[in-house]
Amino acid sequence: MSVRIPYDELKATAKKAFLNLGLSEEKAEICATIHSQSSADGVESHGMNRVPRFAEYVQKGWVDVNAEPELVGKKGAVENYDGHLGIGITNALFCSDRAIALAKEHGIGCVALRNTTHWMRGGTYAWHMADEGFMGISWINTESCMPMWGSDVPSVGNNPFCIAIPREDGPIVVDMAMSQYAYGKLGVYRLAGKQLPYPGGFDKEGNLTSDPGAIEDSRRILPTGYWKGSSLAIALDLAATMMSNGRSGADLDEENRGSCTGCSQIFIAYDPYLFGDKEEIQAKLNKRVAAADAAHPINEKRPVKCPGEGTRERRKDCMENGVIVDENIWEQIRMLAEGNLNVTDIAST
Amino acid sequence: MSVRIPYDELKATAKKAFLNLGLSEEKAEICATIHSQSSADGVESHGMNRVPRFAEYVQKGWVDVNAEPELVGKKGAVENYDGHLGIGITNALFCSDRAIALAKEHGIGCVALRNTTHWMRGGTYAWHMADEGFMGISWINTESCMPMWGSDVPSVGNNPFCIAIPREDGPIVVDMAMSQYAYGKLGVYRLAGKQLPYPGGFDKEGNLTSDPGAIEDSRRILPTGYWKGSSLAIALDLAATMMSNGRSGADLDEENRGSCTGCSQIFIAYDPYLFGDKEEIQAKLNKRVAAADAAHPINEKRPVKCPGEGTRERRKDCMENGVIVDENIWEQIRMLAEGNLNVTDIAST
Repeated sequence: MSVRIPYDELKATAKKAFLNLGLSEEKAEICATIHSQSSADGVESHGMNRVPRFAEYVQKGWVDVNAEPELVGKKGAVENYDGHLGIGITNALFCSDRAIALAKEHGIGCVALRNTTHWMRGGTYAWHMADEGFMGISWINTESCMPMWGSDVPSVGNNPFCIAIPREDGPIVVDMAMSQYAYGKLGVYRLAGKQLPYPGGFDKEGNLTSDPGAIEDSRRILPTGYWKGSSLAIALDLAATMMSNGRSGADLDEENRGSCTGCSQIFIAYDPYLFGDKEEIQAKLNKRVAAADAAHPINEKRPVKCPGEGTRERRKDCMENGVIVDENIWEQIRMLAEGNLNVTDIAST
Repeated sequence: MSVRIPYDELKATAKKAFLNLGLSEEKAEICATIHSQSSADGVESHGMNRVPRFAEYVQKGWVDVNAEPELVGKKGAVENYDGHLGIGITNALFCSDRAIALAKEHGIGCVALRNTTHWMRGGTYAWHMADEGFMGISWINTESCMPMWGSDVPSVGNNPFCIAIPREDGPIVVDMAMSQYAYGKLGVYRLAGKQLPYPGGFDKEGNLTSDPGAIEDSRRILPTGYWKGSSLAIALDLAATMMSNGRSGADLDEENRGSCTGCSQIFIAYDPYLFGDKEEIQAKLNKRVAAADAAHPINEKRPVKCPGEGTRERRKDCMENGVIVDENIWEQIRMLAEGNLNVTDIAST
């Protein structure tokens, strides 16, 4: 069951929880804002649902709430940082802001971050760059969670890739993992007794299937676009490793901690109005979006939308009517806010 | 039927054809090399198969063989060019080289090119940047050829995205269109009387299907990863449009020429050894590739490979045993090389 909690109450409660976990006032404010916004945007899986898990990571020592990113090197439009296993959100926002600062100076800015932790909702940083008026690209490498194409065991991460195009009418944003469905989504369908709308993996016998439980059993989740998502996933892993001189997915697998602990991330910002008139460029983008949205729909009641447009509608609804939160998660966050940090107990509720 | 032609003979014949089409000695050499290499790498569709079509484009006035890219603006690590509808291959190689030059100076280099023409095999430019020791990323916008997710009519391009990671053992390269199968591939399966190995689109009744002819009839080709490829395709289109201040896919659709005439392209190069030791970084990449390649295979006879590894094997075979070319295409190229430029006749053979 879910409840609707007013955004301000949600954020204030989450902030108390983060303060109790040892975060500074500034970091608690940032993390409470990002987790609350993610849920308000409809990304519950990496919004409020992750607050109790974050508490667990801190207590396991996977996240050092006091660490700050450290400059490793700088050349022209590029900077490298070591995240020192600090908070994924604050490390990634810092690097996004550095990419923007570099883009202001050099037209484009690229920041590679190694040795960091889970950044929660991947799209946060591309949205942030777009909100600041820059085109944003970011990606991450993760532990292996899906088979390489041609393999029957998890052997590459789902390595989300994000890109955001700034628009005055609201950015167009893609935030896509390289697996067709997240494991979390499979669980949601299984618990509801439903089949996936499209095949999401292979069963133990190697048949393509839409049965979520069969895929959870086989661990043979499907790459986005079959061989294509598998190829892009390994390339993004290699690129992040090379650019940050950090851990690859193979290193993460070897260390076998979990939840992206120690991973590598990339942040690229681009100044969109270097040589062209802002109004002219915005008009071109609006024309392209309008043409896509006007494409004849399969179902007249479901008009075509560009990515990000639906998110803005969900956000508006949640800001007006309260953010949707699972009631068990809400109870756990309230316990954390009250100072009950016994995460093992919390996780079992 | 296909024939095997020695690489040198293939290239020399193609070069004569290009010279007869009015290309300079230098441009004819470059184009003959790229088309021959693409076929040798197994990408016949955009290798030799495109030479007669290129002749057609020149004669239709879609490509100006004498045009040169012109600098529109330059700031820091970014340059913008107008391609003046010059040859897609030479324009794109020029911009790749500019991206590399900028990366040498600024760590990263980004070149946006507008008003250019079909670049043939998309992966050419990322491979080129990797061969020069740089990480390469490139993409393009095209006319609408696949439905946006939720639409039943072509409304977005298949906008290929390419990324190449330099390795001393050979680069890892992804060259992926945002459609699961190219229309050319559907034709190959239909003519062979075969079903696609995985669903490739919807039939006219809206059912997901592996029947290539049914998809050719409906024009409802499937985006790579369903909603994900559709989202990434529109975002890449918007990004290329914004970065180059060039035509969007909607503009290309409106002008209704064809074959990417007037499109926008992006080239990004990154210096991989800015702050780290080359041997250390190469060892990390090799470890990641080796771990992926060692993943337990579904079929013991078909070991897992990272993208680009199979290409290098095909190239080696073709360089030793001759490049595989369709015999009708070979006949057409020989006619062009002999000075018979009557493309209408050639196309009908």
